[in-house]
Amino acid sequence: MSRPVSQRGESTREVILAAGIDFAREVGLDSLTIGALADRVKMSKSGLFAHFGSKEELQLSVLRAAQKGFNEAVLQPALKAPRGLTRLRRIFEGWLDWCGDSEARGGCVILAASYEFDDRPGPVRDMLADAGRLWLAGLARSAQLAIETGELPANVDTEQFAFQIYGLVLSTHFHMRLLSDPMAPQRALQGLEQLIAAPPRLSAQSTASTQP
Amino acid sequence: MSRPVSQRGESTREVILAAGIDFAREVGLDSLTIGALADRVKMSKSGLFAHFGSKEELQLSVLRAAQKGFNEAVLQPALKAPRGLTRLRRIFEGWLDWCGDSEARGGCVILAASYEFDDRPGPVRDMLADAGRLWLAGLARSAQLAIETGELPANVDTEQFAFQIYGLVLSTHFHMRLLSDPMAPQRALQGLEQLIAAPPRLSAQSTASTQP
Repeated sequence: MSRPVSQRGESTREVILAAGIDFAREVGLDSLTIGALADRVKMSKSGLFAHFGSKEELQLSVLRAAQKGFNEAVLQPALKAPRGLTRLRRIFEGWLDWCGDSEARGGCVILAASYEFDDRPGPVRDMLADAGRLWLAGLARSAQLAIETGELPANVDTEQFAFQIYGLVLSTHFHMRLLSDPMAPQRALQGLEQLIAAPPRLSAQSTASTQP
Repeated sequence: MSRPVSQRGESTREVILAAGIDFAREVGLDSLTIGALADRVKMSKSGLFAHFGSKEELQLSVLRAAQKGFNEAVLQPALKAPRGLTRLRRIFEGWLDWCGDSEARGGCVILAASYEFDDRPGPVRDMLADAGRLWLAGLARSAQLAIETGELPANVDTEQFAFQIYGLVLSTHFHMRLLSDPMAPQRALQGLEQLIAAPPRLSAQSTASTQP
């Protein structure tokens, strides 16, 4: 993530990457080639090649840029909120906003690319999987902090919690983007409050598999 | 969905569509062209063109075939179970199996295509949205039947219930396909049991409009 970027040409690079994010959002990350993006930004193919070297490196760079945008728009503001449920809710709301904002650079690109590349082994899939795992770990960590502040019970299954939060956002994304359902963010928020009110527990039920 | 299909050449058509589903699962529905599929099934492009007439009609036919497979594998067996929670659980488990089975024809294709086409207006997107709405309505209906059998409280918000069930399956799909997490189906089942034990309720505000 903290890959060094040459200072020279940084702003040109940023312009190219922003166009690459737009392109990937519209047509899919896999269709993002150096030639196609060169046409879009009205640069020479060799000029773009000098920046990225390969289609794959271009795709990885676009994902890094999308993730940087996500961190700046969602994660960093939320980290200013007090740890615990306040921060957890801030993260969730920021994530929903990011997914719902069609102008946002990255959120939908990362999710869409996760589907596009989930069965294509390679560096792009690896980066998407790493990003997914890192984000899930962050969600579980946020729940853990809410346990430490005493706002969630000590025996909450934080990984299950993160799994279900992820599902709420994926369902929101699906409802908004495909079904154009304006109720979706409200449903997601209701789902989060329900999870907070009755969180999944590490309990006899999950370890001993005894069903009523 | 119940579009008439010519009897003559039905089996050839089915072979082509099965190959089309495989192709779409591997490379994406948008990359599914008559030429690419003709190469794959070793038929002439004009022969395939006679079957489908256009790339779009081919894509729609593949989606219909995937949906038919889903209905046969998931919905129809579940409808034999008694209405109520038994059927609801059967639907959910069948859906998880379908998504998790990498050999399954359609489940992942439909979800992946839903992401691929969510911002591309046209008949393919329309079909995917219709399929999504129909399935969500079916999930809400299953919850409604569980209210009628007395297994769920009368004030359960069945649409919210369906929204959250959808999220559990999307999260499972994400965890299995991208993160290769073998725990995902178990987490989904735990999420469903949690939803059943503490289902979302219609708030006083939303019930007020439907009550005298």
